[in-house]
Amino acid sequence: MLEKNILQELRKIVGPSWVRDEPEDLYCYAYDATFHENLPEVVVSPQQTAEVSGVMQVAYRHEIPVVARGMGSGLAGGSIPTQGGIALNLTRMNRILEIDRGNMIVTAQAGVVTADLQTAVAQVGLFYPPDPSSQRQSTLGGNIACNAGGPHCLKYGVTGDYVMGMEAVLADGRILRTGGKTIKNVVGYDLTGLFVGSEGTLGVITEALMRLIAPPQAIRTAMAVFPRLVEASVAVTRILEAGLVPVAMEIMDDTTIATIEAHKNMGLPLDVEAILILETDGDEDQAVREIERIAQICRENGAREVRVAEDREQGIQLMLARKSVSPSLARRRPNKLGEDITVPRQAIPEMVARVKEISRRFNLPIPIFGHIGDGNLHPNILFDRKDEQEFARVQQAAEAIFEAAIDLGGVLSGEHGVGTLKRDYIERNLGPVAVEVMRCIKASLDPKNILNPGKVLPSSN
Amino acid sequence: MLEKNILQELRKIVGPSWVRDEPEDLYCYAYDATFHENLPEVVVSPQQTAEVSGVMQVAYRHEIPVVARGMGSGLAGGSIPTQGGIALNLTRMNRILEIDRGNMIVTAQAGVVTADLQTAVAQVGLFYPPDPSSQRQSTLGGNIACNAGGPHCLKYGVTGDYVMGMEAVLADGRILRTGGKTIKNVVGYDLTGLFVGSEGTLGVITEALMRLIAPPQAIRTAMAVFPRLVEASVAVTRILEAGLVPVAMEIMDDTTIATIEAHKNMGLPLDVEAILILETDGDEDQAVREIERIAQICRENGAREVRVAEDREQGIQLMLARKSVSPSLARRRPNKLGEDITVPRQAIPEMVARVKEISRRFNLPIPIFGHIGDGNLHPNILFDRKDEQEFARVQQAAEAIFEAAIDLGGVLSGEHGVGTLKRDYIERNLGPVAVEVMRCIKASLDPKNILNPGKVLPSSN
Repeated sequence: MLEKNILQELRKIVGPSWVRDEPEDLYCYAYDATFHENLPEVVVSPQQTAEVSGVMQVAYRHEIPVVARGMGSGLAGGSIPTQGGIALNLTRMNRILEIDRGNMIVTAQAGVVTADLQTAVAQVGLFYPPDPSSQRQSTLGGNIACNAGGPHCLKYGVTGDYVMGMEAVLADGRILRTGGKTIKNVVGYDLTGLFVGSEGTLGVITEALMRLIAPPQAIRTAMAVFPRLVEASVAVTRILEAGLVPVAMEIMDDTTIATIEAHKNMGLPLDVEAILILETDGDEDQAVREIERIAQICRENGAREVRVAEDREQGIQLMLARKSVSPSLARRRPNKLGEDITVPRQAIPEMVARVKEISRRFNLPIPIFGHIGDGNLHPNILFDRKDEQEFARVQQAAEAIFEAAIDLGGVLSGEHGVGTLKRDYIERNLGPVAVEVMRCIKASLDPKNILNPGKVLPSSN
Repeated sequence: MLEKNILQELRKIVGPSWVRDEPEDLYCYAYDATFHENLPEVVVSPQQTAEVSGVMQVAYRHEIPVVARGMGSGLAGGSIPTQGGIALNLTRMNRILEIDRGNMIVTAQAGVVTADLQTAVAQVGLFYPPDPSSQRQSTLGGNIACNAGGPHCLKYGVTGDYVMGMEAVLADGRILRTGGKTIKNVVGYDLTGLFVGSEGTLGVITEALMRLIAPPQAIRTAMAVFPRLVEASVAVTRILEAGLVPVAMEIMDDTTIATIEAHKNMGLPLDVEAILILETDGDEDQAVREIERIAQICRENGAREVRVAEDREQGIQLMLARKSVSPSLARRRPNKLGEDITVPRQAIPEMVARVKEISRRFNLPIPIFGHIGDGNLHPNILFDRKDEQEFARVQQAAEAIFEAAIDLGGVLSGEHGVGTLKRDYIERNLGPVAVEVMRCIKASLDPKNILNPGKVLPSSN
């Protein structure tokens, strides 16, 4: 519990009703989308940057941990207040400050929900492409802090590719502004890029300038059924070599297909190793031409069947299988640990083979799906948290998956972040020098270690 | 002059013939593509990373400044050894280590010439898009250290967008490896991004992994003549709003056109404010369709004349005017100061108007050309270095251009870097907090300030 005088200082900054320390409030800010939780000592909900700065000045003076959070949809424990302190709830800072149509840039506060931002810019004929599956729930600040991806990032890039600048509050309350409305900028170090993906450990992102593009006029979808997964992987390479950049290339393996069928009975084939869902966009002509070339490449590389949607409606039907993955997994077992490993694209077949071996070794169902064009796979370990013995196997299986990814030249996370879940593994992934350099940067910007302590970097002893 | 024992240590590391301190050697490494120069105390030319590490260990122990350099084509003084010390010549480290066709990634040493890298990957059917004008001369390491751009970066992005990972030697000789062959990676801070554009002040880049793409099958070019520059700017906005992303959109203003005509007599119109050169690519069909839509948009927005090349040959002819700019400027006056300001796209007409006013005020010819789609303009101040009075006006005009760019929400540099030329202005551009944060990072990674000291960041007193 924080001392009364500190609570008093915080109330003066944000107003008495936005500083809460009753147990029922604390519980609401103790968790994210993992199965971990820990109570903060107080929940503070500022409405503007000056208030965030004030809160940080208090935290700095009294050395209180601060964990910034949006809607708590993180998948790596990054927004859980593992050391108590202040849960800094940014969801009241949800205003879209400006849509600059001419320069195609939106400026918004960190707490705006991603889907709301997308809707607002769509209303003036512009398009914000990053589409994390959590988009109806997660916030812009969280997306930036974790550098969130999504299926459409194959063609359009991840969240970080759209950040043109930001406002962030530093550990001692100073307000940092980076970047701006220029496409190119090589003046000094890329602080915008450094803060993207830093998971609240270097500063609290309060505002961002995001690049927008013109919306595609048409979208086309295809589903390709591959008896052998290795051939699906070859087809993906051939598509990219041909200069085609589909909006999305999603893969579902046999375990995933079986899990969907058990739940939804959609008539998906149960005797194949992989299904790809592919999407193109552009003007009508381009979208159609590209999906047809892609379908042809799939047929030439071992696809048993390729269905090309004739219109958007049919396309949505084909994509339904992919969208059904997460709800179907939830039906099969009470809990899941969704991994997020990324390997060089060519290593996908080997990575899938190793996950299947791990699934057998630890006797756990592990459906694999994800963004095959990026090499970003989500093996989901299914289990029952109440079975302690099983849960111990889950931890071992997760570690074995990490090891396999690293062994194949991959990384622990492609779009979810490190948080608490993967921090003990990052040195094995990045090597000691990179971790030392990161520690150095962290210590220089947050000397009292109050910004989301215990996240991203492993403890140093 | 360095002490004999230090030279001896360096000779042990790289071999006696690769440590030179005769005046004729020092003069060769004293300059870049600006009009500044300063002699190093010794030139050291390593052939591999281990040697660079050895050199840095010596420099660290004895606190000797180290300026890494490739071919010295920098435009901001970044590779000039302003404090003497070691000129670390990386041009012997010019090997392409691997072209991974399946994953579409090339790994190369820092000293490879950009055009050689492009040729090597083209030979196996791949494409490396960044195209700084210096590409036949400048090296990969320098391109990364300055985050070089080029005309084609409108569609394809700048050098930094292609760096998937790197190897760099830190101030004390430790070897840092960042990134890898995965498209997505959110494990820890983005050190790759931090080193991109850091101009040798955080470490010596020795190797890099660069992303490649499939080459476009066709390119189409058009030239649009605009009596009024403001209408050219509107046309650019309309093109982008229509969802078209040309490979390049280059602008030349009336002063530039007149300068080319005086030199080349190409028959360009002398009674217009701006000419745009536009390029599209893709498959034949896409390139043609897009250039025709672009031509139409130009006609609808005030272009007096639009010539669309019917094939690649004609396209090269149209582009010839743009390629003639630099040689033509050199004919008009003995010296030039090529600026590199970038403004939000919508501010281009106002920026051009202000440069023209500055040109009149200081009585100096300032042709303006550059990458209008990016908002990146190169006003080139023409002068004679021998005329001291004129040179004083050049400095004032350059400062006035910086002020105007900042005033319009722009930045000092879009693709050349800060070096020594702009470092005294960056605090005005970025604000004190951003500069303090950069200093903090610099001090944490280079506590003895031996890595390219006196560059990028302004002196702190």
